[in-house]
Amino acid sequence: MQGTSGAHALVRTLVDSDVRVCFANPGTSEMHFVAALDALPQMRGVLCLFEGVATGAADGYGRMTGRPAATLLHLGPGLANGLANLHNARRANTPVVNVVGDHAIDHKPLDSLLESDIDALAGTVSTWVRRSTTTEALGADAADAVAAALTCFDGAEEVGQGSSRTGTSGSVSTLIVPANLSWSAGGRPARPVKIPASPAPSEEHVRSIARLLRSGEPCVLLLDGAALSERGLRAASRIEHATGARLLSRNWAARQRRGAGVPLVEPLAYRGEQITVQLRDAQHLVLCGARTPVTSFAYPDRSSLPTPPDTRVHVLAEDGGADAVLALDMLADHVAPGIEPVLAPLSPPPLPRGELTVDNWTAVIGALLPHDAIVCDESITAGMATLQPATACSPPHDMLGLTGLSIGQGLPSATGAAIACPDRPVICLQADGSAMYTLSALWSHARENLDITTVILNNSSYAILRAELERVGATAEASAQLFDLSRPDLDFLSLANGMGVPAGRARTAGELARQFRRALSEPGPHLIEAVLPPRAG
Amino acid sequence: MQGTSGAHALVRTLVDSDVRVCFANPGTSEMHFVAALDALPQMRGVLCLFEGVATGAADGYGRMTGRPAATLLHLGPGLANGLANLHNARRANTPVVNVVGDHAIDHKPLDSLLESDIDALAGTVSTWVRRSTTTEALGADAADAVAAALTCFDGAEEVGQGSSRTGTSGSVSTLIVPANLSWSAGGRPARPVKIPASPAPSEEHVRSIARLLRSGEPCVLLLDGAALSERGLRAASRIEHATGARLLSRNWAARQRRGAGVPLVEPLAYRGEQITVQLRDAQHLVLCGARTPVTSFAYPDRSSLPTPPDTRVHVLAEDGGADAVLALDMLADHVAPGIEPVLAPLSPPPLPRGELTVDNWTAVIGALLPHDAIVCDESITAGMATLQPATACSPPHDMLGLTGLSIGQGLPSATGAAIACPDRPVICLQADGSAMYTLSALWSHARENLDITTVILNNSSYAILRAELERVGATAEASAQLFDLSRPDLDFLSLANGMGVPAGRARTAGELARQFRRALSEPGPHLIEAVLPPRAG
Repeated sequence: MQGTSGAHALVRTLVDSDVRVCFANPGTSEMHFVAALDALPQMRGVLCLFEGVATGAADGYGRMTGRPAATLLHLGPGLANGLANLHNARRANTPVVNVVGDHAIDHKPLDSLLESDIDALAGTVSTWVRRSTTTEALGADAADAVAAALTCFDGAEEVGQGSSRTGTSGSVSTLIVPANLSWSAGGRPARPVKIPASPAPSEEHVRSIARLLRSGEPCVLLLDGAALSERGLRAASRIEHATGARLLSRNWAARQRRGAGVPLVEPLAYRGEQITVQLRDAQHLVLCGARTPVTSFAYPDRSSLPTPPDTRVHVLAEDGGADAVLALDMLADHVAPGIEPVLAPLSPPPLPRGELTVDNWTAVIGALLPHDAIVCDESITAGMATLQPATACSPPHDMLGLTGLSIGQGLPSATGAAIACPDRPVICLQADGSAMYTLSALWSHARENLDITTVILNNSSYAILRAELERVGATAEASAQLFDLSRPDLDFLSLANGMGVPAGRARTAGELARQFRRALSEPGPHLIEAVLPPRAG
Repeated sequence: MQGTSGAHALVRTLVDSDVRVCFANPGTSEMHFVAALDALPQMRGVLCLFEGVATGAADGYGRMTGRPAATLLHLGPGLANGLANLHNARRANTPVVNVVGDHAIDHKPLDSLLESDIDALAGTVSTWVRRSTTTEALGADAADAVAAALTCFDGAEEVGQGSSRTGTSGSVSTLIVPANLSWSAGGRPARPVKIPASPAPSEEHVRSIARLLRSGEPCVLLLDGAALSERGLRAASRIEHATGARLLSRNWAARQRRGAGVPLVEPLAYRGEQITVQLRDAQHLVLCGARTPVTSFAYPDRSSLPTPPDTRVHVLAEDGGADAVLALDMLADHVAPGIEPVLAPLSPPPLPRGELTVDNWTAVIGALLPHDAIVCDESITAGMATLQPATACSPPHDMLGLTGLSIGQGLPSATGAAIACPDRPVICLQADGSAMYTLSALWSHARENLDITTVILNNSSYAILRAELERVGATAEASAQLFDLSRPDLDFLSLANGMGVPAGRARTAGELARQFRRALSEPGPHLIEAVLPPRAG
């Protein structure tokens, strides 16, 4: 390549903007991007065998670092394959920079076979979409893409090279790159864009919430986003213990710090009627980086808005906003000066015995969870009731949840988290049906030799759908086979072995404990199939 | 359920419109559709473990029957996961009816976690999109969806209950169904819509092409779509042998009838410069259900339009049009009265010996191909050079190709073809990298006990990308690992066994022959991993 190619300038700019990992499933239109990786070893290319793995990995990486990874996707179908996990990233406010190769500009009007409407697809998940038009501008476009991904950011810290960020506030940006801009000479790397700090919460507004908390009227603080970082939780705990306000956390949050030494928070329930019970005594609901509760689905003759009608809703910090931590700190200084947070003790549950059930497998995890683990949770019905209590007093850890309810997020997310934090053990708790969406993430676990222990919760069914079928008031017998994952049974040992991941099967709590311990004691990826009774949950 | 639910009316209408199979991956918002399947056993529900399998199966089914299957998809992310194979269906002009569940109408503005822009996603692959607005109209909406899917249809035959159609002309239609319309009473099944026959080609236009063919100036007929049916090919062959016009067929066509007893046609090459050579003597290029050749990708300093500048292009029948067969028949009556088509002899290649190579595995397939097989071809580089010649004089068969170049189509397409044609053997020739996109189709092969023999061509790489990297003038060494599928090797035996499909591995032509024979002699699915030298292609 004579001179600097557009692709080289693009990758150079990403690297200079501290984007250091690219989860890639490239095709012909991205070949020069691939070639540029050779000249720029500061960018780590991670091959994923399906785009949904690449985007889910970028989500997991972004949640753990607060900085975007890049994805490299091939045209419209490649982006389409990655959309479901970009949906989860969008709902997690994760910064992600998608680089989507497109046909050369002159080629595009010819409607060749892979031509499709990339812009429309990108718009469904991205807060920022740009189609590059010149080679010269490609570097600047890349810098703008990074800035856009970080714009909704944690204002408490400066964003810059090597900085670490506590929250996961950001968004998905997508840069569409015609192939000829990549291969042409004339690329100009751009300077990393400085992200302006977001304005601090208004002192007056914080004061008004403080008055509310001091009023003696029952208050609930609902925490999400950056409020679920350790710093946010400590401030919230001080407020709780100074004012008597109750704390609730969003369930299946993007990232929550939990465990011994971290304030303990009751999670918001999944079902609307349970949430209504949780909130029934609350005169005020204060949203701290959280949204007003909305049920995931509507059901005949039930409300989608579970907040009791007499509960007044106040916003301390917006959902996805970066100022939740700062706002909680300010609020705590008002209402809880000198008050210390109350921290969960180190008190893991005892190891259970007997056959595995939907109620006891989580105690095995809670009993053996290693220090500072990252737990990627897509256990869905298998973990809904007991995972949070079983791990509440385990060693401190981060838990990453299924933010957008688009299944197939656990294994990819674990990939990204492990690459973001190579010195921390990653535990992936993965439901069986959802695992099949993006199973080839296991191959990337093996290829990159990631320290991930995957526990597949195999209940041989889409258990949540069985429950939903009953809940919508429908009955179906013959069609119940549409939720049945047996006949044939999925054998996750064979599937894992087929992708180079050593695996074992556990039918009792003792077997799960033994295998989980061993997996944690060895480097590299492992998989344990935990066999649960069918129709669990 | 009191009265007729909207979902029941929807399914009833589909059944009455001869839509008899639904490839489903449902969620909460589709529960009443699932429940309706119980009451209407005429609709066969086929569970797929990933939406890309469901849409690819609908594509394969539609190609073989000329009638749409339904898909049942869950909200935006479910549709997103199915888009890549809907892209292939769109490029194949396959009729498909997508039913996409959405949130209840009152729930939608609440932006709950799974909310996304379904309409924008649907628009990228569908020629017809409708969002239902009342329960009463749901039946009529379904009838319109079927009509839209069939509108671009084979005019030579009436469309109706039980009719069979030779071509694959149709399109993708998408009906978005808010959940509350499904669960409410008041549904009204609608009458199947009568599809008007498309107008016959104009006699005058056919005459003008006939004059061209009689002129003595060198002509090439490029065949695609319905022109590649047996009837279309017979007419084309008569024309060829009466006038000296050359025939070319689109490579990787949606469906082509081939083999002994069927006229033999040279395929259009994949690379632009090869196409230019194929057409260099042609003064006239006559498109018969085909498009003007366009290269799949642009490359630096090469043209995307390989037709030589002096070749004049004429359209006998449009791409995706249904009148290609009729037009060829009329043309043959003009220029070839009394002339018989020239048919390929039954003359399969001899069985090769020795280690498997990219050049000899296809001869094993050609030598042993059973009568009236359906060959789903996604072998890509492994089959590009030799699959067509190796099977040209095998017993008659249909070959289904990767129409939209969006990989992950082979295994799902085989699923749908086998369900469409339960009495015919289905052979799926599947490249390794592409197989990983939608591998869980194997589970559906086992669940439905489909007579599919899958041959995985394992060359441990994205071989086409290695070639493309060189072709764009780029070199990459370190980043070549992005095309390398070894470390760890994918073990397709374990992967198949994990989903209930018996499997074997072949390293020599003799082993492949023995295993292929045995798989064909036994009912149900089988998989053979054919190990090819790395960097094949």
